Amino acid sequence: MRSEINQALTEFVQGENKYLAKIGSELDPVSGGIEKFLLESGKRLRPIFAYAGVIGTGTKPTKELIRAFASLELIHVCALIHDDVMDGSDTRRGAPSIHKSFEKMHQEKKLVGSAAQFGISSAILLGDLALIWSAQMLHKAGLANDQLIKSLPIYDEMRVELMAGQYLDVYEQALGTQSVERSLKVARYKSGKYTIERPLHFGASLGGASTNLITAYTNYGVPLGQAFQLRDDMLGIFGDPVVTGKPAGDDLREGKRTALMAVTMERASPVQLKELSRNFGDPNLTNQQVSTLQSIIVETGAQAHIESMIEELTNTSLSALTHDEISTVGKALLTELADIATNRKI
Amino acid sequence: MRSEINQALTEFVQGENKYLAKIGSELDPVSGGIEKFLLESGKRLRPIFAYAGVIGTGTKPTKELIRAFASLELIHVCALIHDDVMDGSDTRRGAPSIHKSFEKMHQEKKLVGSAAQFGISSAILLGDLALIWSAQMLHKAGLANDQLIKSLPIYDEMRVELMAGQYLDVYEQALGTQSVERSLKVARYKSGKYTIERPLHFGASLGGASTNLITAYTNYGVPLGQAFQLRDDMLGIFGDPVVTGKPAGDDLREGKRTALMAVTMERASPVQLKELSRNFGDPNLTNQQVSTLQSIIVETGAQAHIESMIEELTNTSLSALTHDEISTVGKALLTELADIATNRKI
Repeated sequence: MRSEINQALTEFVQGENKYLAKIGSELDPVSGGIEKFLLESGKRLRPIFAYAGVIGTGTKPTKELIRAFASLELIHVCALIHDDVMDGSDTRRGAPSIHKSFEKMHQEKKLVGSAAQFGISSAILLGDLALIWSAQMLHKAGLANDQLIKSLPIYDEMRVELMAGQYLDVYEQALGTQSVERSLKVARYKSGKYTIERPLHFGASLGGASTNLITAYTNYGVPLGQAFQLRDDMLGIFGDPVVTGKPAGDDLREGKRTALMAVTMERASPVQLKELSRNFGDPNLTNQQVSTLQSIIVETGAQAHIESMIEELTNTSLSALTHDEISTVGKALLTELADIATNRKI
Repeated sequence: MRSEINQALTEFVQGENKYLAKIGSELDPVSGGIEKFLLESGKRLRPIFAYAGVIGTGTKPTKELIRAFASLELIHVCALIHDDVMDGSDTRRGAPSIHKSFEKMHQEKKLVGSAAQFGISSAILLGDLALIWSAQMLHKAGLANDQLIKSLPIYDEMRVELMAGQYLDVYEQALGTQSVERSLKVARYKSGKYTIERPLHFGASLGGASTNLITAYTNYGVPLGQAFQLRDDMLGIFGDPVVTGKPAGDDLREGKRTALMAVTMERASPVQLKELSRNFGDPNLTNQQVSTLQSIIVETGAQAHIESMIEELTNTSLSALTHDEISTVGKALLTELADIATNRKI
């Protein structure tokens, strides 16, 4: 299904790039920038969960449905491009982030004014455009009118929740204290609902699901979404740079306030706390310092605690799949996806 | 009609704010920020042109239609919030811009990390949310399904053109040279189509207009949109700060490359060019220096030239109103709007 999703994205973006080219060749870097960002990598998790959502209803995914599901990936492209500006991240998936690549273009073309500001402005607009394209891709998917109309409230709610979750995260990073409870709330909105529950609902609505089935998807999606985010937090600290495309311990340098770090802080000894408060969030950490902080996270038992939370949340999620309205093939796919979402290396 | 548009916006935003409040009180500044920005001022030009677009078809604007038209204002809120981040503008309509007000909140609450970065991140997210809300307001307007479906391609095209125009503008500012032709192209996309032509088409599509009528609106809207942007350029340099809410000569300090400045450069004497290249774009210009630059723009005849372009474009626009499918009351309203768009002080 991933290749079908990728094909739908390629066709859509290349069509829209032609539209931009008619406005002017100045827009070539815009077209090229989004196309490259979108097509060169990405797990397509949200389209895949939407796909699973419709499979679970027993409906066969048509080409039109695939296009509608694929459109979710463009919302994600907006979120990632804007996220990199907000975090000041220079790389994404091992390549320069959008604002960095436009900053570089400014330098290479010897344009006037601040290259960094040009990069940021371009990235804001490319993110906006990706958000608009996502809706346009859905509108043009070729769905029946009543199907499209029925899917719009879920689409809107998902997007509002995403932005609310992003703000909760930005605000959380700006608070002086850590809290497991607050970190889990951020995870619920920023990732849980937006990555899993709402894409499932979106697929379900397009497959004409019953209210009961929608509830079953919530029971599966919300805990799995939290587990997904907790895995993300672990990868941000223990992930293999070769696989993730991010420097080792990236979240340590960034000082990212996650549930994992909140548990670590709660459990740390005075000596460990001192070490943490001295180094956590220092962008210039050496690999040796990263390794020391990683050891503290392990020694406090925080890593093991989060692993067991992931396991527990995943089990809760899987138990919702016993619901008898979910098709057999849907159950198999959702079981596999739960494994992918929580045991991934990237 | 302005008060009906404002009422629809108030009702929508207050409803959505309740939704955000259910997620958490951390989002209160987000709700409050957009609500204040949206409701405290704004000319509502785009909803008004959409209103005129439907009036021209002879259709009576219902409450549902007003809601759909009003949704355009939220696209504009996104554009303005993001624009202020891109330009680094500290004020908007005489009040702090969104990124500045979140920066201030960060300082007042003594949050950790960079207050400026917190302001920018918040503004990116509030702009994204406004863009999402605009679509949600349209979807929830209560239109008939086929009406809504028919309006979506125009809505999408308008939003793509806006972002394309914004990028053309950012790129134009980064070029080392000025060009009247390029400035007019930026004006065509950034303002012309987005402010006038597409809102008219949007209204027309909701009123079930014929292809001929749509073409007549293009003939009216495109030149008027350019005239509107030329007036904007003039106000950016000669506008009364008391009325515009912006410092006198704001665009001179910002070094904004507009058609007005391109004509000035073309016509300037070597002495005038030297003065311009020394001071144009200096953020610390004194009022005396602003006044010297203003005199150069007048003395080169650029101001008079742009005034005559505005007049000519407005006349071309008005001549399109002879089209016999435009209702009499529509003609009267569109004539009045052409005057407002081109003779405004703000």
